[in-house]
Amino acid sequence: MSILIKNGYVVYGENLEVIKADVLIESNKIVEVAKNINKSADTVIDAKGKVVSPGFVNLHTHSPMGLFRGLADDLPLMDWLREHIWPKEAKLTREYTKVGAYLGALEMIKSGTTTFVDMYFFMDAVAEVTLESGLRGYLSYGMIDLGDPEKTEKEVNEALRIMKFIDELDSDRVHFVFGPHAPYTCSIALLKEVRRLANEHGKLITIHVSETMAEIGQIAERYGKSPVVLLDDIGFLADDVIIAHGVWLDSRDIQILARHGVTVAHNPASNMKLASGVMPLQRLLNAGVNVGLGTDGSASNNNLDMLEEMKLAALLHKVHNLNPTVADARTVFKMATQNGARALGLKAGMIRESYLADIAIIDFNKPHLRPINNVISHLVYSANGNDVETTIVDGKVLMLDRELLTLDEEKILNDTERVIGELT
Amino acid sequence: MSILIKNGYVVYGENLEVIKADVLIESNKIVEVAKNINKSADTVIDAKGKVVSPGFVNLHTHSPMGLFRGLADDLPLMDWLREHIWPKEAKLTREYTKVGAYLGALEMIKSGTTTFVDMYFFMDAVAEVTLESGLRGYLSYGMIDLGDPEKTEKEVNEALRIMKFIDELDSDRVHFVFGPHAPYTCSIALLKEVRRLANEHGKLITIHVSETMAEIGQIAERYGKSPVVLLDDIGFLADDVIIAHGVWLDSRDIQILARHGVTVAHNPASNMKLASGVMPLQRLLNAGVNVGLGTDGSASNNNLDMLEEMKLAALLHKVHNLNPTVADARTVFKMATQNGARALGLKAGMIRESYLADIAIIDFNKPHLRPINNVISHLVYSANGNDVETTIVDGKVLMLDRELLTLDEEKILNDTERVIGELT
Ligand SMILES: [Zn+2]
Ligand SMILES: [Zn+2]
Repeated sequence: MSILIKNGYVVYGENLEVIKADVLIESNKIVEVAKNINKSADTVIDAKGKVVSPGFVNLHTHSPMGLFRGLADDLPLMDWLREHIWPKEAKLTREYTKVGAYLGALEMIKSGTTTFVDMYFFMDAVAEVTLESGLRGYLSYGMIDLGDPEKTEKEVNEALRIMKFIDELDSDRVHFVFGPHAPYTCSIALLKEVRRLANEHGKLITIHVSETMAEIGQIAERYGKSPVVLLDDIGFLADDVIIAHGVWLDSRDIQILARHGVTVAHNPASNMKLASGVMPLQRLLNAGVNVGLGTDGSASNNNLDMLEEMKLAALLHKVHNLNPTVADARTVFKMATQNGARALGLKAGMIRESYLADIAIIDFNKPHLRPINNVISHLVYSANGNDVETTIVDGKVLMLDRELLTLDEEKILNDTERVIGELT
Repeated sequence: MSILIKNGYVVYGENLEVIKADVLIESNKIVEVAKNINKSADTVIDAKGKVVSPGFVNLHTHSPMGLFRGLADDLPLMDWLREHIWPKEAKLTREYTKVGAYLGALEMIKSGTTTFVDMYFFMDAVAEVTLESGLRGYLSYGMIDLGDPEKTEKEVNEALRIMKFIDELDSDRVHFVFGPHAPYTCSIALLKEVRRLANEHGKLITIHVSETMAEIGQIAERYGKSPVVLLDDIGFLADDVIIAHGVWLDSRDIQILARHGVTVAHNPASNMKLASGVMPLQRLLNAGVNVGLGTDGSASNNNLDMLEEMKLAALLHKVHNLNPTVADARTVFKMATQNGARALGLKAGMIRESYLADIAIIDFNKPHLRPINNVISHLVYSANGNDVETTIVDGKVLMLDRELLTLDEEKILNDTERVIGELT
């Protein structure tokens, strides 16, 4: 299978050079980027007036939570979790979760996300959806033992069951990741076991760390140190770890993350909406920490739109620092693409020969994206997920001219209404 | 002319009650909101699975600046103005500005804005575009005399010329507003003359006030007081004044604004992108000040999307106050609709019998707006301008199913590319 994308503005390579060029895809890779490629291809896409961008890498989400979109807003994190989210999640079945996963996959494809890192329950169902949707997914079962040794074993067993299930799918696109929920919900025993298992099986780890001030207080009270120092002390941190949030990091924490090559998944919308705080982006970048971008779940965002998330990231750090030069468009665009891919050890996140063909084509024939003075600026500051016209993952077209090719959009939308009716 | 909108979720009245109902429009007003209205109408719109919302009131913009979208980002305000915006504006002609105004009008209609307050140059051209587009516009010529008495007279004359031009259009939709640029760019003489003329002619006034810390410093040095105290001392403030920004307001300023019934137009995207600071929303609302929402110009946003602006407003104030309960969805939605209309003395901004028929129909048949758990939440936190399907102003359909009925979209997009090519 081959795809030729003609006449677009291509966001090329690591430095995001914008060139008018054609892009040739063979099998699952980009094989040529050049002007006027004169080769035949199975599919030819005319991208005149459109932008050929690397697909977005959503480095932290809980994809089935779209079911709960808008059910509870404008509340403190713990009220939100205890009174609204957890009681609903307690009623989730595999079938309900699968419907949520379909909704999440649909939303991601429609907004140009090509790869996502997920943490939730019934992850075998999420894996099936990911396989079917055509997305690239790094899927973790969210482990919570609350210090109960019996629960520890149960959680490890469920994670291993999911790992086995996903490994047996034998897909290049669907990957298992360990997902201990957070230092305040997981015992040291669980965290150590996860570290051991990740080494043994060569899997990545993702975990929520230093999201709220309350968490910092709790961990300080329990262990007399910060969450990052705690994780460092038990030998948990390495360059295969992606921590979500990292809002309340002090200078020592940042040095530790840098030393171990840990990636931070930044979730500005969620951190703003839940009033968690502002991640120290500048200090992390200055220390050389790899920072990617995530949407978090749709219950705290309330969507999975990585284009919107880029704008939020750029604007938040400018006003927080009272400095308009920080979090510039290029820095933020890299966070949403190549930095995410780097965290996953994935040769993707940029349009370049020999890279994976994970691409979003964005229609610039729209008033809010004209005149085309600056493609990267328009992507970060003016575009949104609805502007994505075509989404390609692993050399396969998942959406063409906003038409889903792998999923049944209407059925999924109807199913979500039915499920939420049954859940509430 | 009559329009019947069937089967939508209607955001009804001042309290934003969401009801499944039909909406009947006759001439330029909403005449009935009820279930199963059984009357014939010239146009019938099926809004099944869609939301019938009051159109958005953009209380502060510079609509032709879309021309400069993305030309310069990530810069301090004064560098941005001096090195990029002002040199380009110096080259603007009436024709170029008119193209910019067409682009702005197009973008506003496509994202559900029905009324806007504008400040720019060649406002006769902007008035012509507003008339043709079908939008409701409050248009001000931006007066700047920099303390030069000759310039004062020239600026007043240009404003009066524009006032005459607009008054002679004799349109219910196109209004003249006085627009002295700011206390730091206008002399006391100019500000006093504007106040006198506004009283004489019964026109509103809009002005930038307390946008940056630099402005506060400058005005303190020149006059020994805050910009708001200065304006109060010269008798400038009244309930016909809309100040844009109001970022650096102290408690005394806020009391003065409340006492005079001044409206504040909040521009979160611009304040964040230019790193101007965070407007004290909670303190303003607590003092009883009317606060509306604006996008500012597309060069500092970089779009005119009021749906996106609502999310930014809600998220910014939550994280700034470390309190997720502030700037809740309903408060922010009112800012973007009825508060703006109130500032303009306009019986609009809500769907209710006898109100002006200024309406945005938003398509909820999309993954990021499902399940329909909470319409107001989805509008504020998950929707964006591209989700608007139909825009009605003054009882006339300006966009139907995303098709512009009053403007030639393709021609405008082509013209903007030509103009920016000639300008740069
Ligand atoms: Zn999370
Ligand atoms: Zn302005």
